[in-house]
Amino acid sequence: MSARVDKVLIIGLGLIGGSLARALKKRGWADQLVAYGHRDVSLKKGVELGVIDSYTLDLEEALSGADVVVIGAPTLKAAEILEDVLQRVDESTVVTDVASVKNNLLRAAAGAPNFVPGHPIAGSEQSGVEASRAELFVDHRVILTPSELTNPDATALVQDMWLCTGAEVVRMGVREHDAILAATSHLPHVLAYALVDALSRSELSEDIFRFAAGGFRDFTRIASSDPVMWRDISIANRDELLLAIDSFSSHLADLRTAVAASDAAALHETFAAAKAARDAFAIKKNQ
Amino acid sequence: MSARVDKVLIIGLGLIGGSLARALKKRGWADQLVAYGHRDVSLKKGVELGVIDSYTLDLEEALSGADVVVIGAPTLKAAEILEDVLQRVDESTVVTDVASVKNNLLRAAAGAPNFVPGHPIAGSEQSGVEASRAELFVDHRVILTPSELTNPDATALVQDMWLCTGAEVVRMGVREHDAILAATSHLPHVLAYALVDALSRSELSEDIFRFAAGGFRDFTRIASSDPVMWRDISIANRDELLLAIDSFSSHLADLRTAVAASDAAALHETFAAAKAARDAFAIKKNQ
Repeated sequence: MSARVDKVLIIGLGLIGGSLARALKKRGWADQLVAYGHRDVSLKKGVELGVIDSYTLDLEEALSGADVVVIGAPTLKAAEILEDVLQRVDESTVVTDVASVKNNLLRAAAGAPNFVPGHPIAGSEQSGVEASRAELFVDHRVILTPSELTNPDATALVQDMWLCTGAEVVRMGVREHDAILAATSHLPHVLAYALVDALSRSELSEDIFRFAAGGFRDFTRIASSDPVMWRDISIANRDELLLAIDSFSSHLADLRTAVAASDAAALHETFAAAKAARDAFAIKKNQ
Repeated sequence: MSARVDKVLIIGLGLIGGSLARALKKRGWADQLVAYGHRDVSLKKGVELGVIDSYTLDLEEALSGADVVVIGAPTLKAAEILEDVLQRVDESTVVTDVASVKNNLLRAAAGAPNFVPGHPIAGSEQSGVEASRAELFVDHRVILTPSELTNPDATALVQDMWLCTGAEVVRMGVREHDAILAATSHLPHVLAYALVDALSRSELSEDIFRFAAGGFRDFTRIASSDPVMWRDISIANRDELLLAIDSFSSHLADLRTAVAASDAAALHETFAAAKAARDAFAIKKNQ
């Protein structure tokens, strides 16, 4: 069985890029897995761990002969790298990415038919190539948001690449993607950051953290996420995030009104509806 | 070694009351552990499991000769039971409770010197006497909020009871307790309920729950809590909860302004400060 493509280049060999490389290698999807980056520490590690075949610190060399380029960098950095890469390759090289926001990447691509925006909904509390594993994407979803200018063959190739990792591939519009991610991920992070920041500035902050229990721990866990990554996501997905914040704030204001009025019926209705939705979600996700 | 007291009565034999009974029995703190309730299913179970020595469905009989009465019912129900119990016992019977809000219980006690408000900060995803265990309170905190009218001997006895379970006992004012619990527990529940309710009413709700990942799962877990219990807590702790909601909303509004202005410095400052506070909390709590 011959490999689907000759050379895959991973730019930014972290948890996601490394896990993708491992999965593609394991299934023989590409002949050569090459990584490019600025610093050689994690790249060397990638070769030592057998995640990639080789690496280079020279972008031209890295891109030469690449059939598929996967940009593994976070949101704003990914857009910069994308512009640079698209200027250096011709349309026969398919370029994709794994960042959490898609509208800024589509804008950076300026209609390039060989760019296929991608977002694997997978991760881990750990990061770095050391934490990578071939099975990370199995039964996880990968969202592709090609535009009407994207070459269908490029989209098909990226889809094939992700299917090979065991992921389920879903296509949707960029706006829908960014709205869904704003609601399920970006807004919860902003809320957790806002809550912990508010509490840590309270005059009772010492006792607040002293007496906090398990529910608080779960609820605020995502406030330990990387501030740079979330700053960039908030900026890149600004418009959808603002809509999500406003929708949430309006619901919170309604609940506040019910609390202020000791409106038992309204409180129970909202809490019970939310519980039913959360329980249904838990059953589907088997959690 | 003789037991500290003769008879302890538990009203409402659930997870907390049952675990307290188990701990007191194990350490020999009381000679007789008796439970009272309306329905005999969980009470029978309590005897079968060896959690209590006996039970009765008759409140007068239950209270007769009790040295300590522990009201294990939830917030609003606990206040009703407390009023009833205080009318039936004399001041030599010490009465305490385990509910999450304290101001409404102190009001219901109307200055009775034998009532000591208590709140063990412990729980479990499970509930009911079947889930009870003697070690539930070990290394957990129990907050007592006696007023200046409370008999110091009564407070000392309740403190001794909780120390016997392996808990750390802390005393504070009722207002401080209710403010801290509003911040660390009641507000996060309201936020989680508001978020899940907002998302479930969104036109994208199906996809939102379909593509939600681990962070969302942790963040919204508490929205699966009992709506009746949280309705009652929201009503009983209304004033402190409103202050907590307003403080949070003001921080969220500041973050919204920073997002709208793409103010990278302000976003980073808030996110980094919140991460530092959350990380410090995680280290202390060893989580």
